[in-house]
Amino acid sequence: MAGNPERRAALVDAGIEVLAREGARGLTFRAVDAGAAVPVGTASNYFTGRDDLLRQIDVRLHTRLAPDPEVLAELMRAPKDRALVTALMRDILRRVTRDRTGYLALLELRLEATRRPALRESLTASLRGDLDEGMEFHRAAGLPGGDETVAVLYLAMLGLILEHLTLPGVLDGALPGVDVPDGLVELMVARIVPAS
Amino acid sequence: MAGNPERRAALVDAGIEVLAREGARGLTFRAVDAGAAVPVGTASNYFTGRDDLLRQIDVRLHTRLAPDPEVLAELMRAPKDRALVTALMRDILRRVTRDRTGYLALLELRLEATRRPALRESLTASLRGDLDEGMEFHRAAGLPGGDETVAVLYLAMLGLILEHLTLPGVLDGALPGVDVPDGLVELMVARIVPAS
Repeated sequence: MAGNPERRAALVDAGIEVLAREGARGLTFRAVDAGAAVPVGTASNYFTGRDDLLRQIDVRLHTRLAPDPEVLAELMRAPKDRALVTALMRDILRRVTRDRTGYLALLELRLEATRRPALRESLTASLRGDLDEGMEFHRAAGLPGGDETVAVLYLAMLGLILEHLTLPGVLDGALPGVDVPDGLVELMVARIVPAS
Repeated sequence: MAGNPERRAALVDAGIEVLAREGARGLTFRAVDAGAAVPVGTASNYFTGRDDLLRQIDVRLHTRLAPDPEVLAELMRAPKDRALVTALMRDILRRVTRDRTGYLALLELRLEATRRPALRESLTASLRGDLDEGMEFHRAAGLPGGDETVAVLYLAMLGLILEHLTLPGVLDGALPGVDVPDGLVELMVARIVPAS
């Protein structure tokens, strides 16, 4: 396997662009080469096969969509209450909206995982890791509610992100006076997270 | 346009299979013809173009995933409380699990809608219609909670269905003693829907 890390990162990012723009079936080594503007045949020197490319895309998306440690540290200075949970959820929405391409690629990975057992296994492990980490973070920070709170909030956020990034018009104006996504997030947290 | 309704339905159902199995990019008239085992060129006599096929798939999925009126009538004999909301949500999960292919095709339509304005418009209208209907149904039936309850529950159900149909292992065992999806649905409803 070729080892230039910058080129590998550029190829993986090109793969993410292809996934979001054309869907999983469009993700070929040739399309990745074209997207990264490198000679045909380059991607095949960096990935052992399509499953390897998909796994590296998952790893890269995990980094691209992760919280900024400074933003997180700043947010965590606030009292450990519902308002802080709302602020943390808004930060997630800001990140996935800013990197919409990355999140759409993650949705394509999910659907591709229904067809590819190796991807299903690696993606399940990485997303379960995120959920477990979320529960640990919530507990360690002393935020209100336990694991059940985090699980229900995780599902509502997943639904909100899916709807907002693919068909924003479904939610816009559905609740008069509640703006999307910020007002809706506040409402979700108020329902799901105990007051203290 | 050719007018044999059985053949049209068979072509649309074949399109749904192709969407779920191969993704949106695999959905060509040729693949639909092959899936429906009809001569090459048949689909082009039934659909004015790819947007028309996608729109007819959306309409058909709406019917395939709709509640069975008898099941619904039977459920609605119960007292109008949280337990009934839980039973209604479980019925949704039963339907999407039974027609997993149909729901995966709907997820493919969502992602394809990010690339095709005509599909985005028609799919937004049909899903917004479902949300509005859900609110009206909840209100008319005298179920606990108002439109905000229905909106938050809609999002949590959307997240649960997405996770459960694409990567069930993420949720399995995440909350010890809570089975997926039934126990998780009960938990969601208890959090989101007021007691009365």
